[in-house]
Amino acid sequence: MTLPAGNAIIAQSGGPTVVINASLAGVVEAIQESGLAGSIFGARHAVRGMLEGHLCDLGQLDQDSLNKIALTPGATLGSSRDKPDEDYCRKIFEQLSTRDIRYFFYIGGNDSADTCRIISEVSQDAGYELRAFHVPKTIDNDLVLNDHTPGFGSAAKFVACALMGDSLDNKALPGIKIDVIMGRHAGFLTAASALARTEHGTGPNLIYLPESIFDIDRFITDVDRVYSKEGRCMIAVSEGIHNSEGTSITQMLAEQLSGSVERDAHGNVQLSGSGALGDYLARLIRERLGSKLRVRADTFGYLQRSFADCVSASDRTEARESGRAAVQAALDGHTGASLTIRRISDHPYTVEYVPVPLQEVARKTKVMPASWIKDGCDVTEDFIEYAKPLVGPLPVIGSI
Amino acid sequence: MTLPAGNAIIAQSGGPTVVINASLAGVVEAIQESGLAGSIFGARHAVRGMLEGHLCDLGQLDQDSLNKIALTPGATLGSSRDKPDEDYCRKIFEQLSTRDIRYFFYIGGNDSADTCRIISEVSQDAGYELRAFHVPKTIDNDLVLNDHTPGFGSAAKFVACALMGDSLDNKALPGIKIDVIMGRHAGFLTAASALARTEHGTGPNLIYLPESIFDIDRFITDVDRVYSKEGRCMIAVSEGIHNSEGTSITQMLAEQLSGSVERDAHGNVQLSGSGALGDYLARLIRERLGSKLRVRADTFGYLQRSFADCVSASDRTEARESGRAAVQAALDGHTGASLTIRRISDHPYTVEYVPVPLQEVARKTKVMPASWIKDGCDVTEDFIEYAKPLVGPLPVIGSI
Repeated sequence: MTLPAGNAIIAQSGGPTVVINASLAGVVEAIQESGLAGSIFGARHAVRGMLEGHLCDLGQLDQDSLNKIALTPGATLGSSRDKPDEDYCRKIFEQLSTRDIRYFFYIGGNDSADTCRIISEVSQDAGYELRAFHVPKTIDNDLVLNDHTPGFGSAAKFVACALMGDSLDNKALPGIKIDVIMGRHAGFLTAASALARTEHGTGPNLIYLPESIFDIDRFITDVDRVYSKEGRCMIAVSEGIHNSEGTSITQMLAEQLSGSVERDAHGNVQLSGSGALGDYLARLIRERLGSKLRVRADTFGYLQRSFADCVSASDRTEARESGRAAVQAALDGHTGASLTIRRISDHPYTVEYVPVPLQEVARKTKVMPASWIKDGCDVTEDFIEYAKPLVGPLPVIGSI
Repeated sequence: MTLPAGNAIIAQSGGPTVVINASLAGVVEAIQESGLAGSIFGARHAVRGMLEGHLCDLGQLDQDSLNKIALTPGATLGSSRDKPDEDYCRKIFEQLSTRDIRYFFYIGGNDSADTCRIISEVSQDAGYELRAFHVPKTIDNDLVLNDHTPGFGSAAKFVACALMGDSLDNKALPGIKIDVIMGRHAGFLTAASALARTEHGTGPNLIYLPESIFDIDRFITDVDRVYSKEGRCMIAVSEGIHNSEGTSITQMLAEQLSGSVERDAHGNVQLSGSGALGDYLARLIRERLGSKLRVRADTFGYLQRSFADCVSASDRTEARESGRAAVQAALDGHTGASLTIRRISDHPYTVEYVPVPLQEVARKTKVMPASWIKDGCDVTEDFIEYAKPLVGPLPVIGSI
């Protein structure tokens, strides 16, 4: 087996996480150790930097720098929301071939896996040997064939710690509290709020996921039932909840407000970066259950994927290992692959990294299995058992 | 010197923090160690529990339970927003005297210090020896005579970690980002966002505090200047910002929206628990600087005072020590006092706890000194030096 000799390029795409830089460090150090490539380029702002030749040299980074970068939230190379079509990818290919780049490592979600696939195919058509690898990343945890994805565990830990503290606050000053959590199609992150439950009455009473239809009357009935019984109510709700026609509540609100909605290059309606959904639900509860009720809404927003002091140890380790595993796949002679994480044991919790063809992951979305959703407003113990090792130990608390 | 023999009661009031339970643990363990009182009662939901005789027994808590409680966010006894008048306090006094309670420890802000003062005076008028102590607590850091207050350091750490991560996210996907931070009259917590600044381009570019008049034209000019130069802009803004007439922007918005505003028992307009201010500022920027700009707003909300995994070590220690110091003040024969924290040295950072008469702290509000505010949209190095030891070490990061 002969590996093509040449250079490597690494890029980071989509919404950053607190561990995407750990994956970057993993790729860089594994190339350095193995001598897989000559130069190691980093592309600034993902495909855009690749298109415009805006690159930096990663080959000279020493272990100390890599370790610091691995601890840093955000995508240090810069990211992009561009969705390259075949023409865009052809131009990228020209840049890559000019620089004798033979290895491409792309850290991102399912759209990034697709970009990887297209660039790989364009190269193949041109008879140029380019080996493209996709390293998984997404707090949404929505990549198929993966038990879970790097970024999810830390975001889930943030959500669990937030719900734990917030519900203790709500216990001290009782009322109805809505917490809006990221997740367009997949409810894993919102479901992770259930990990905040302890014997001390913490965690959410109600959980609404984008996998279920959000029915407003049903929602009000649920809240009324819990509040009447408990004198307070904690609600975790995904930003992606939608009505029976599939229209997200946020999109509905944006259209009511301004007649138009903001969409990204992928055609997705902008959901994050606004408190509109939480405020709407709070208003709704006051209108329907009583204007004197203490109703508050918080939208966790970008802190979920970027907070600098809340990282799952296993998530950070796996993010780095995923990067290293992609380089190993290249060394093993794979001509291109998406690295996937498989759980091989629960006790002790153990995973392995398995390369699969890019098209098996590209553009596909995994959602919460129906068997993990309970009565449309909660999650099951099975989900909690699944998520626990990904999040790791949570703060120990007491109560009187 | 003879101390009155009898029982003690402890209560927690106002907005909870992540360390208010550490103060509770400090009071309880110091009474247990010293034998100051016979029974140690906890009042459920502050003055309300005292009024209704809704008490619990804290005397039997062992050290392990107290240590766990000290690590727990929220007010485990329950809190209240009631603002008792003299009549309310007289009824509380009847409950206290019936139970032979001679020591009252109230953990809270400047309103709680005032309640302490009134109950103390009512007892005095009745010729009943009650010794009332106020233990400081507030993330707003707005108690006079205190260098800082328990709760502030941890909330400030949360804000700094949030701004650090969020600005790295914004660096990866450039745009204009607004982060709304708690603080009605005092801007200390919003100012703490400046601690997120590092050599890696993190932290806020602009900081708006309630101590300065918020001028919309000036705000837009500031944002335009930074964005034009940097290609991105991070903005930390206090929820309490107000126009030149002293009306908060949030109140203005609430009146526009519904013609009415929600007020608490103290007459304060409800500021938290809504994304309205951030969304308004984001809309304003889009309208004035361009509808295609990537503008996002997050409101940190209740996470700032309750997040279960972000605590300043010195804050937690001082919260507990404040509670212990209040008991020591009682043992030293003080007939009533507010415990204050004084900084006696910067290098090494050292504090002492000084009892002062209740009326010197009650109902008074400290705000950011003008000398710590820079150009109406930033804070000075002096503020950062002041705040650093209160927050403690922040995550170490790197960049490429």
